[in-house]
Amino acid sequence: MNGAQSLVATLIAGGIEVCFTNPGTSEMHLVAAFDRQKQLRSVLGLFEGVVTGAADGYARMACKPACTLLHLGPGLANGMANLHNARRARTPMVNIVGQHATTHLRHDAPLHSDIPGIANPWSDWTRTSSSAAELGRDTADALRAAQSEGGQVATLIVPADAAWNDGGIVVSEGAPIPIRLPASAAVQHVGKLLHSAKKTALVLGGNALYGRGLALAGTIAEATGTALIAPYPFARMERGAGRPEVLRVPYPREQAIALLQEFSELILVGAQRPIAYFASPKADATVIPCGCRVHTLASPNEDPCGALEALASWLSARDAKNPLRKQEQVHQPCGAITLDGLAAVMAATLPENAIVVDESMTSGRGMLAAAKNAPPHDWLGNTGGSIGIALPLAVGAAIACPSRKVLCLSADGSSMYTLQALWTMARESLKVTTVIFSNRVYSVLKREFASLGMGDPGPVARDLFEIDRPALDWVALAKGMGVPGCRVSSLEDFSKAVLNGYSAEGPTLIEVPL
Amino acid sequence: MNGAQSLVATLIAGGIEVCFTNPGTSEMHLVAAFDRQKQLRSVLGLFEGVVTGAADGYARMACKPACTLLHLGPGLANGMANLHNARRARTPMVNIVGQHATTHLRHDAPLHSDIPGIANPWSDWTRTSSSAAELGRDTADALRAAQSEGGQVATLIVPADAAWNDGGIVVSEGAPIPIRLPASAAVQHVGKLLHSAKKTALVLGGNALYGRGLALAGTIAEATGTALIAPYPFARMERGAGRPEVLRVPYPREQAIALLQEFSELILVGAQRPIAYFASPKADATVIPCGCRVHTLASPNEDPCGALEALASWLSARDAKNPLRKQEQVHQPCGAITLDGLAAVMAATLPENAIVVDESMTSGRGMLAAAKNAPPHDWLGNTGGSIGIALPLAVGAAIACPSRKVLCLSADGSSMYTLQALWTMARESLKVTTVIFSNRVYSVLKREFASLGMGDPGPVARDLFEIDRPALDWVALAKGMGVPGCRVSSLEDFSKAVLNGYSAEGPTLIEVPL
Repeated sequence: MNGAQSLVATLIAGGIEVCFTNPGTSEMHLVAAFDRQKQLRSVLGLFEGVVTGAADGYARMACKPACTLLHLGPGLANGMANLHNARRARTPMVNIVGQHATTHLRHDAPLHSDIPGIANPWSDWTRTSSSAAELGRDTADALRAAQSEGGQVATLIVPADAAWNDGGIVVSEGAPIPIRLPASAAVQHVGKLLHSAKKTALVLGGNALYGRGLALAGTIAEATGTALIAPYPFARMERGAGRPEVLRVPYPREQAIALLQEFSELILVGAQRPIAYFASPKADATVIPCGCRVHTLASPNEDPCGALEALASWLSARDAKNPLRKQEQVHQPCGAITLDGLAAVMAATLPENAIVVDESMTSGRGMLAAAKNAPPHDWLGNTGGSIGIALPLAVGAAIACPSRKVLCLSADGSSMYTLQALWTMARESLKVTTVIFSNRVYSVLKREFASLGMGDPGPVARDLFEIDRPALDWVALAKGMGVPGCRVSSLEDFSKAVLNGYSAEGPTLIEVPL
Repeated sequence: MNGAQSLVATLIAGGIEVCFTNPGTSEMHLVAAFDRQKQLRSVLGLFEGVVTGAADGYARMACKPACTLLHLGPGLANGMANLHNARRARTPMVNIVGQHATTHLRHDAPLHSDIPGIANPWSDWTRTSSSAAELGRDTADALRAAQSEGGQVATLIVPADAAWNDGGIVVSEGAPIPIRLPASAAVQHVGKLLHSAKKTALVLGGNALYGRGLALAGTIAEATGTALIAPYPFARMERGAGRPEVLRVPYPREQAIALLQEFSELILVGAQRPIAYFASPKADATVIPCGCRVHTLASPNEDPCGALEALASWLSARDAKNPLRKQEQVHQPCGAITLDGLAAVMAATLPENAIVVDESMTSGRGMLAAAKNAPPHDWLGNTGGSIGIALPLAVGAAIACPSRKVLCLSADGSSMYTLQALWTMARESLKVTTVIFSNRVYSVLKREFASLGMGDPGPVARDLFEIDRPALDWVALAKGMGVPGCRVSSLEDFSKAVLNGYSAEGPTLIEVPL
């Protein structure tokens, strides 16, 4: 058994079922090892930003570690922006990155680069394997690192000779990955706080936003009257009828402050302290009002769900009834396209158990609220603010949950970063309905420019914000990658197109000119 | 004057005329500073790999430093693969990368990342500016660094507060950037070697491959009988009728060895020692035969043209007649599409002074040789082996040389990494004719797999090499980005389409199914 085969067998023994990849010459022995296995599914992306974003979406929905195979330093670099987002989502991810054969490094060949140096800023764990004999052990360590500390990005660099040499050893770990629970003092402190009836809110992150974690949060909210909120960037939220309502901290700083000033105590449960994305010359980025105290029940590297379990137990709140909301029949508007109308149609047509991927930026700010009483669904967001994640995330979510419909809400500017994801959707016949809000402008920049007090942008600045020259034709772009698309000009059209999308066997795209 | 304005004014004082960019929120004050200047042209790319690749192409043809403006760590990361190529081309490049305001860093906001750590592996020079007062000085230092050591990548990180605070100072440097010449002992050593009539070859890199440098190399070749060769990866080569012929070391290792074994002495003139891209289990990457000696006239951080000037002078070869080849009327074949036929048509139709950008991979291996007697032209290649550079490089070359026609030879697999470049071509009405060789396979991987002795790929491996499911429709992709395109099915069609491209006022695309 060569090193490559031991790596692949160790991945499989560790529960990896899918590898997202764009391999190159230096990874050929790993590809050959894939060839010998039937258990590991390879999903090809034509650009590495698609690969890492899809891996992230897969892990968020499959609740398993993601795996990628990337080609040398440039392949890793191409995937980095979405690795940044995955890391901010605390997605457990193992990246296998090929490296030149050890003897080749001294030649400074054209594709040589400092791969550990490239990986470090984006990885919580990085290692270069030293030999075929070590590769199985290294792979198992990478898998363990990825699943530790609440989810980490682990990057294993594999020299070609470590892959092709004989002497590989499969490492199958029996021991469970340790999950860190908060100290009982923290639970007691928060329990007392919730009993003291101040204006409190649990700020939820990680697995406190779905499944058992969210149900526990709902139980605690019902029992104590505490509010449930989530920072603007969250990885995954379960929502809709039958789920406790969680308020999202808005993106604009003033709106975030307005929400948070309702509270005197914020309790972090696996979430970071809410903060605005950017500071400005006139204001820092603080959104938590003066006098509001911040407590930590669980830090992001502890287990939020376990923390809520302990808190519910301390509060004896286990049997409280969840504040479940009923599914409502939502009015479906018609006529000319408006952002509110699009949101209402989206909510009214959302299928049960849908997965909504949302990077609709300024155009879609009303989407989340509109869908709060829709049938139960999951909502996936951009956690790191690096745009170009929606389409790849939808790929991964659809692969993780083949029986569920995926609605991908994106915008023209952000979609252009990783539009190659459409091809993988077509190739894998994924049930993804992609909606492109086409306002033909980097709207967030235009707003920011104005808010920084620089007045109206002049011709040069306008030219860097407006992407209408030429207008992107998303129906043609989708066709180019094998995805049927249409352009809609009314809310009725939009409703019909979305429903067509949900009933299709593969992907579709809807361009919504705004 | 704020820091941003001092930065832009310093760039302009340093001779920068074009900035390739995809800015974000943290760069708004820099965009506002652009707005106040008329001398600096901003060129927008919808993805940062387009931005850095275009900057590289611009610098190669304008013989001036390139400049980019990028958004935080993820924006820099998205541009890295083509920064790798630019660095290997020794392109002088200044990257301006926005950073959060200094006071914002402590919050670990969603878009926070270790920008110096990200920049370091790809930059020869990295600095984070400390204040508005220092920003002009830092910019001048970056410009100087970019133009030192034979061309470097310099990355200047600009905290938002350094940009928006007052106190900016424009720095205009009078002193020329020092050019390092080789020691006279090296010149004398090589001069004697060339006189001793062994089988010698000058291995040319950098500015020895065009302009005065190439003319001097031709003079020396004529006077001494030495051969002129270039490593497979070269940045820019001037070729065609009236230019000395330079042989390229072939990509396949066996062919490279076959070429180089003709020589007993190789003399490096600004080029790296030829080496194969990859090692294999059965062979290392050496392509220089045993017994062949390698000498250095100029290292890559010295001035190759100056070295040739000194060598020609030592040889008293200044007045020798250049071995100029005549332009030939090339036979233009017709009928079914073949690779040889495509190469012949390309050569026969190439306009005088064309710029050919070549990333046509396996399909285009005969292109360079076919055009050797075509009208004078420049040929730009992929220097770092990171694919996805051709379309961006064509953007930059066309902006540097608006009166010249650009022929961009690419392949379906490589073009998909940075296809967003088509939009910038349309936006800027660039005279670029893009040819996509559409073989629907990562052909180089298929060959490599076989050459590594792993036999025929099985179904999983084949699925990672073949990109025909679904077939990419390049005419639709081009249309989606505002570029008129066509698909050709015969050599006559191809000839007509290429000539149409050259006579068009803006970009066109030709898909050649293979």
